[in-house]
Amino acid sequence: MASWEDNLRQIEPYVPGEQPQGKDIVKLNTNENPYPPAPEVEKIIKEFKTEDLKKYPDTTAQPLVEALSEYYGFEENEIFVGVGSDDVLAMAFMAFFNSDKPILFPEISYSFYEVWADLFRIPYTKTKLNEDFTLQKEEFFKENGGIVIANPNAPTSIAEPLEFIEDVLKYNQASVVIVDEAYVDFGGNSALSLLNKYNNLLVVQTFSKSRSMAGARIGFAIGSKKLISTLNAVKNSYNSYTMNMVSYLAGREAVLNKAYFEDRVNAIIKTRENCKKSFKELGFTMPDSKTNFLFVKHDRVPAAEIYEKLRQAGIYVRYFKKPRIDNYLRITIGTDEEMNKLLGELKKILGGK
Amino acid sequence: MASWEDNLRQIEPYVPGEQPQGKDIVKLNTNENPYPPAPEVEKIIKEFKTEDLKKYPDTTAQPLVEALSEYYGFEENEIFVGVGSDDVLAMAFMAFFNSDKPILFPEISYSFYEVWADLFRIPYTKTKLNEDFTLQKEEFFKENGGIVIANPNAPTSIAEPLEFIEDVLKYNQASVVIVDEAYVDFGGNSALSLLNKYNNLLVVQTFSKSRSMAGARIGFAIGSKKLISTLNAVKNSYNSYTMNMVSYLAGREAVLNKAYFEDRVNAIIKTRENCKKSFKELGFTMPDSKTNFLFVKHDRVPAAEIYEKLRQAGIYVRYFKKPRIDNYLRITIGTDEEMNKLLGELKKILGGK
Repeated sequence: MASWEDNLRQIEPYVPGEQPQGKDIVKLNTNENPYPPAPEVEKIIKEFKTEDLKKYPDTTAQPLVEALSEYYGFEENEIFVGVGSDDVLAMAFMAFFNSDKPILFPEISYSFYEVWADLFRIPYTKTKLNEDFTLQKEEFFKENGGIVIANPNAPTSIAEPLEFIEDVLKYNQASVVIVDEAYVDFGGNSALSLLNKYNNLLVVQTFSKSRSMAGARIGFAIGSKKLISTLNAVKNSYNSYTMNMVSYLAGREAVLNKAYFEDRVNAIIKTRENCKKSFKELGFTMPDSKTNFLFVKHDRVPAAEIYEKLRQAGIYVRYFKKPRIDNYLRITIGTDEEMNKLLGELKKILGGK
Repeated sequence: MASWEDNLRQIEPYVPGEQPQGKDIVKLNTNENPYPPAPEVEKIIKEFKTEDLKKYPDTTAQPLVEALSEYYGFEENEIFVGVGSDDVLAMAFMAFFNSDKPILFPEISYSFYEVWADLFRIPYTKTKLNEDFTLQKEEFFKENGGIVIANPNAPTSIAEPLEFIEDVLKYNQASVVIVDEAYVDFGGNSALSLLNKYNNLLVVQTFSKSRSMAGARIGFAIGSKKLISTLNAVKNSYNSYTMNMVSYLAGREAVLNKAYFEDRVNAIIKTRENCKKSFKELGFTMPDSKTNFLFVKHDRVPAAEIYEKLRQAGIYVRYFKKPRIDNYLRITIGTDEEMNKLLGELKKILGGK
């Protein structure tokens, strides 16, 4: 007999990193920023006129788009904002990947790409990586219905040079190419500089990492007017009002304070570079991270074991039980204090071996 | 030659009501609440610890779900929250409507149902309405892949009795039945009372109308554990973190202050009932609204003309240029002061006729 359960969607969802609660926990598992947002963010929230909540927000989140327009030097109709870069990317998958040919993305990358392709029933092929986790350019020179590249890539932390991205674009004039730059502010080279030459390029960034605003849910995309208007049509067919008022007003303030942003990003980069040395001294190897995390492997002790022992000590890092990377840990760069606590604990764990 | 533009999604988006800015404007076009949110909402936003924004929000928006659980008397795993009821409904379409058979919804109803069906490529059939805009029960006794009914319906403002919904449920044990109760707090009977008997029923509500929080983007669904876990799987395949921190904390406070909520809803109902009389005196006819808006038609003057003249006077109401309803206006119930201003202007417009 037919049942209503027959038509329920069967789907394997993405499993986000744990969000443990507790005062003494060191949370280095979801690539959050250890520093608070710009001081003006606090001010605007304190001054927010709560009565305004009775009205619908601006559908276009105009105050935020305006600030991004000035900051990055693109017109407002070349900018799209969403509820975190996940929302932006999901809409971009729906908007741009309507071919019967498979879309291409790296076999090791942000695991949501596969989840969205499944959700929207988009065919896909994963491209091979080199032994050192760098991407293989030729893998993107195949017939396709679209391309997604995270640059820097996650969880590998590696940034491909801009020439790599441009070569992919040159070969793929018949596809939309999405470059997911969630981590670019920590040392990558943004493909924003290629937008004047390629109107099939969409660059996606987020406020969740470099701008310390994961809790506000803000992501954005910059691309040609044609791509952005298509994204807006899809968004307005899904939910006209995705971004709440407080988030777009607060996000605007974060963009306006450029000095604070650069200062905090530089602090994280400095901590990261120090950590690279300390981790190597402890017997870890890793790619040269251009992100706010390290992707490390120990020469003697299995990652799963280190992960478990750190967890018991109240230090959370990310472990992916997946082929090729199941002996690696992804460790977010926290404050110097947090990293020293982590390094101290690692010494204890590895010292006993 | 193949072009990247070939695979862009072609779609006709929903067009939301205008959001005119300006001090003297009377905005009665998007069914917003004229009163501010509960005072505790302001307090929690003022006291919000901005530094917390650096962390991802709780994926489940637990503080809000907990409050809803206590308020409505359902378990937390029977409740799903999203970025407005549009987000909840869109996810429900993806989660529940995966049959080859058409889903059913009324020919005159919330126009987003058709937009979502198109977006997700779900086949659909629109059910006929009676001459007086009430729904025809037998229209839902056809083979289908799912059912969506707005009750009270929009823009007609009519609430069908609960027996109507139960008869539809009785006949459709093999389909998921979604009852969209965006306006139920203004006088409808909620299908929440049927949830103990029908585990294929999903009831969707919103904070945008009765709880004065359109700007915060909060909607929710209550249903069986199976429906809610399926919704969560789809949500976690789209965006793990849809609801920002400030919204779920503020939303929680709105739920906790039951007295304020009831008081404001009653004030709107009182204004509505007074308006019904005044509108009739001016020569308007209308269904017996159980919502926070009236769906009115004048016996002499065309709706399009009244709409345009009100607009020129800075009073915004909603006009749908659609078959059967193109001589109607949808007018949100504002404060008594706003409604008096509207009535005064209508007298001027109609007096000259």
